[in-house]
Amino acid sequence: MTDVLEGDATTDVVIPTIAASKEGQPVGWRHRHLLDVDDLTMADLDLVMRTTDAMTEVLGRPIARVPALRGRTVTILFYEASTRTRVSFEVAAKNLSADVVNIAASTSSVTKGESLVDTIRTVEALGAQMLVLRHHVSGAPYLAADTFGGSVLNAGDGWHAHPTQALLDLFTMRSRLAGGALNGLRGRKVVILGDVLHSRVARSNIWALTTAGVDLWLCGPSTLLHGFDAWARSAAIGGRRITVTSEVAVALRDADVVMALRIQRERMASGLLPSLREYAARYGLTAERLSLAAPGALVMHPGPMNEGVEIASDVAAGAQSVITDQVANGVAVRMALLYLLAGAPGAGAAAPAS
Amino acid sequence: MTDVLEGDATTDVVIPTIAASKEGQPVGWRHRHLLDVDDLTMADLDLVMRTTDAMTEVLGRPIARVPALRGRTVTILFYEASTRTRVSFEVAAKNLSADVVNIAASTSSVTKGESLVDTIRTVEALGAQMLVLRHHVSGAPYLAADTFGGSVLNAGDGWHAHPTQALLDLFTMRSRLAGGALNGLRGRKVVILGDVLHSRVARSNIWALTTAGVDLWLCGPSTLLHGFDAWARSAAIGGRRITVTSEVAVALRDADVVMALRIQRERMASGLLPSLREYAARYGLTAERLSLAAPGALVMHPGPMNEGVEIASDVAAGAQSVITDQVANGVAVRMALLYLLAGAPGAGAAAPAS
Amino acid sequence: MTDVLEGDATTDVVIPTIAASKEGQPVGWRHRHLLDVDDLTMADLDLVMRTTDAMTEVLGRPIARVPALRGRTVTILFYEASTRTRVSFEVAAKNLSADVVNIAASTSSVTKGESLVDTIRTVEALGAQMLVLRHHVSGAPYLAADTFGGSVLNAGDGWHAHPTQALLDLFTMRSRLAGGALNGLRGRKVVILGDVLHSRVARSNIWALTTAGVDLWLCGPSTLLHGFDAWARSAAIGGRRITVTSEVAVALRDADVVMALRIQRERMASGLLPSLREYAARYGLTAERLSLAAPGALVMHPGPMNEGVEIASDVAAGAQSVITDQVANGVAVRMALLYLLAGAPGAGAAAPAS
Repeated sequence: MTDVLEGDATTDVVIPTIAASKEGQPVGWRHRHLLDVDDLTMADLDLVMRTTDAMTEVLGRPIARVPALRGRTVTILFYEASTRTRVSFEVAAKNLSADVVNIAASTSSVTKGESLVDTIRTVEALGAQMLVLRHHVSGAPYLAADTFGGSVLNAGDGWHAHPTQALLDLFTMRSRLAGGALNGLRGRKVVILGDVLHSRVARSNIWALTTAGVDLWLCGPSTLLHGFDAWARSAAIGGRRITVTSEVAVALRDADVVMALRIQRERMASGLLPSLREYAARYGLTAERLSLAAPGALVMHPGPMNEGVEIASDVAAGAQSVITDQVANGVAVRMALLYLLAGAPGAGAAAPAS
Repeated sequence: MTDVLEGDATTDVVIPTIAASKEGQPVGWRHRHLLDVDDLTMADLDLVMRTTDAMTEVLGRPIARVPALRGRTVTILFYEASTRTRVSFEVAAKNLSADVVNIAASTSSVTKGESLVDTIRTVEALGAQMLVLRHHVSGAPYLAADTFGGSVLNAGDGWHAHPTQALLDLFTMRSRLAGGALNGLRGRKVVILGDVLHSRVARSNIWALTTAGVDLWLCGPSTLLHGFDAWARSAAIGGRRITVTSEVAVALRDADVVMALRIQRERMASGLLPSLREYAARYGLTAERLSLAAPGALVMHPGPMNEGVEIASDVAAGAQSVITDQVANGVAVRMALLYLLAGAPGAGAAAPAS
Repeated sequence: MTDVLEGDATTDVVIPTIAASKEGQPVGWRHRHLLDVDDLTMADLDLVMRTTDAMTEVLGRPIARVPALRGRTVTILFYEASTRTRVSFEVAAKNLSADVVNIAASTSSVTKGESLVDTIRTVEALGAQMLVLRHHVSGAPYLAADTFGGSVLNAGDGWHAHPTQALLDLFTMRSRLAGGALNGLRGRKVVILGDVLHSRVARSNIWALTTAGVDLWLCGPSTLLHGFDAWARSAAIGGRRITVTSEVAVALRDADVVMALRIQRERMASGLLPSLREYAARYGLTAERLSLAAPGALVMHPGPMNEGVEIASDVAAGAQSVITDQVANGVAVRMALLYLLAGAPGAGAAAPAS
C-alpha cells in the first residue's frame, strides 16, 4: 500500500481514496455501504486486508489515534445486546477521531414503536454521517441503506450476515496461516463447526472464505445444516468449494482452521437439538477432536463462548487458539472499513479536504 | 446578531453575553435555567432564534465544532426513555466541546430509591455545571433548579413542559413560513392536533406560539382537550389567541401549520379514547384532511410517530412535511440554549475568560 | 509532593513514578492493581492522599483537564447498577484525558453467559489498558487481575471491598479533621453505624482507618455485626483498635465522625431486620443522637441514602454533613489512583515517555 496513515490528532487529515493493488495497479474502494461480503471481489478483500495492516500499525503506537474521521459522527444503533461488536466499533471510530453516539434500542424510544425508517431518518437528522446497525431482522441494514444519506455498516442482522466478523476472521487466518498474503489462503482447509443454520457469522464467512479460494467445510448436526447442501452445489458452479457433512472426524481431518460456532441455548426449545450435553459429546471441539486436524491448526470462535459446550475450555485457552487475536483484529478491521467507506466516492458526507 | 462564533476547537473561546436585538438595542440573556417557555418574552425568543441561526451556520461547517463550552461538563439525566431528545442534547453539547455524562435512570442507582434532591446534589458534586433533565413527574426540573448550582435545562417533565421542543418548532416555522423573521409568524394559523391533554409538547408550544403572536388552534377529541377552554379564555385577556375545537375540518381550514401529536397507546386503557382505529378515522392527519389547509401548509410532528394512527405515512413523508427539519433544527436550538445559559450572568460556573 | 501536574491537554505528559514522602524520602507506588486497601501501608495511604491534593488543585482550574492518561483506554465494566461510582470513575478518567469505554452488564452480551475470564480477555483485546470493575461476586476483581494484562481497579465486589470509597472517606476526614495531615487522624473516634455485615464500604474502611490509627467503632443491630467481634480481636493483636457494640449511645459518645451505612431493603426478607421503622427508631442517625457526638462531628454516608431510615433528612442536609464533599472528593481520589496505577512499574501498558 503506497498510502500511509501519517501523523496524530494534531496533524492534517489524510484520507486516501486510491490504494495500490498488490500488482501495483491503483484500485479504488467503490462501496458506499458494508451490508454483506457477498459483493466483495478478491481485490476488495485484498484492499480491506492491506488497509487493516496499516491500522494494525496505528494500534501499535503509544497513542493509537489518527485524525481520519475528525468531525464525523458515527452512530452505533444496536437492537440486540452486544459487548464485543459494539465496543469494537466504538473504539475503532474513536481511534479515527470520530464522534461516537451510542443508541441501545432497549433503553431508547425505538421501543415506543417508531418504524425503522423513521428512526434512521431521525438519526441522520441528528447528525450521523456513518451508521453502524445491528438488528434482529435479516435485511434491516438494506432498508436502512435505502433511507440513510451516509454509509451503513451492518454489525449483524438476524441470521443473515455479519460482514465485519467474516473480515476479521479472514484477516486472522491471513496473518497466522499465510504470512499476510491473502493468496496464501487458497486451498487451505477451513471447517466451520456447529449451528451453521442460525449463524450470520457462518453465512458471511462462507462468502468471504470461498472468494478467497479456501476449501470450506461446514459441519454440524444435520438439523443445523439444513439448506446448505443446495448452497454448496450452486456455489460449485461458480468455482467455490464447499463441503457439507455431519461427520466431524471427516471434517476435521487435516484441517488448517477449525472455527466453532456458539450454540444458542434457545435452540433447544425448537427441537433442533436434543441437549447441550449431547451436542457437546458429539460436536464439541475437544483436544481429542482437534488432534485430527493438521498440526498447529488454528482454533477460532466468534464469541461469546459457551465453554464446555461447543468448545472445551482447554482448547479455547490452548496454544492453537487465536480467539483473542480475533477480537484484537476486529478493532483494526473496523477501523479499516470505516476509513475506506468514509473515503468512498459514493459516501454521503463530504470528505474533509486532504 | 453582531457577535459571531469564530474559530474551531483550537481557537479561543468566545462567549457573547450580549447580543443586539432586531431593533439594534443590546439585549442580554437573563435566564439561568430553561424550565419552560412561559417566562420568555418576545425579545428572549428572538435572541434564541438568532443564536440558533448562528449555530445552524456552525452545523454547516465541515467540522461542526466550536469551543464555547470547553472544560464544562453537561450531565444528561433521563428518567424516561428517549432517543431523539437525549442524542440531540448530547450532539449539541459535544459540538460546543463540552464533556458529556449520560445517566439513564433505568440502569443507575437512582432506581435504588434515592431522592431526586440527593441525586441532583450528587450529580453536581461529580462535576456537572449544566444539567439536562427529563423526568416523568411534572415540576421535577423546578425542584432540581432549587438545588443545582449551575443551569438546569428541562428536557421534558411529565405532561408539563418540553421547552426545547417548542423552541425548535418555533425555529422551524420561522425558517419555513417567515423567512427567518420571528415577527413574520404574527397572525399565522397553527393547529395542534391530537392528544393535547397529555402533551407537554402542546403546553410549551402554546406559550411560545402565542407569545410570538400566532393564531393558535387546539383540536382533538373533547376528552383530550379538557381544561383548555379555560386556558384559552384566560389567555385571551392577555391578548393571546387560542381557539379550542373538536371539529377537525374547522380547525384545519386555511391553516398554515398542522402539528400532529403522538397518541400514547396507554391512553386507551384510561377510557379517554375508544380505539386507535377510531382515532385515526376521525382525527388522523390524512392527505384529504391536509387539503383543507392552506396550500403548502407545513406538516409537523414531535416524534416518534405512530404512522397510520395520528398521521398517515404519505403525509409524514410528503412534500409538506418538515418533520426531519424539526429534528435537525433541534440540535441547533439546543446548541443555542446551552450557549446562552452558559454565558448568563446567573450561571453557577465561572465562564472561561474570553 | 515535589512533582506537580503541569499544563493542560496541549502540553507534554508528565507521569511521576516517584513522589517524595512527608519525611522527604522518595517513595514509589508499587501496586499494579487496586483490589482492596488491606495491603496498603501508611506510606501508601499518604501517597494517595497527597496525590489527591494535587488532583483537587486540578479540579479547581477553569478547565479541569491534564493529559496524564492521553492515549490510554479505561474500560468501566459494571455488573451492578451504579450512578455515583460509575460516573465518578468516568469523569476522573476523562479529566486525565483517557479514552473511556462504558460496559453495563445488563445491556451487554455478558448476559449471554460468557465467563468472566473470557469477558476480561475480550475487554483487553478490545484495547483496555485499565479496567474498573464492579461485580456482585466477592473476589471477582482478583480473578480479573489474574487474567488482565493492565491494571484492575475494584469499584465494589459483593460484600467484600470498595477500596476507592474507603480512600475518599479517608481523604474527607483528613481534610476536615486533620488539616490535610494523615497523621492527624491518629486516635480520633470514628463510628460506622448500621448494616456492617453486608457492607463492602465498611470492610474497606476498617482496613484504611485502622491503618491510619483511627479509634474505630462498629455499631448496629447484633444480627448485622456477626463475625466482627472476632475481626476486632484479631486486629487488636496487630495494634489496630476496633470496638464492636450494639449500644448506639455508647458508640456515638464523643465521636469525631459518624458514618451511617445504607440499609438495603432486601435485608428485611432475610429476617435479619424486623422493619425499617424499627431500624430507624433504634439506629437511625437523628439530630438527637448526633448531639451525643463531639461538637462539630462529621456526618458521612456513602450514598445513596434512604432518608428517614438510616439517616434523618435534617442531619443529611445539616451543617455537619460532609456527604457532598465525599462525592466531590471521590473524583479527585479516583484521578489520583488512575494516575498512580498508570505510572506503576508493574503496569501492563507502556507509559508514554515523560
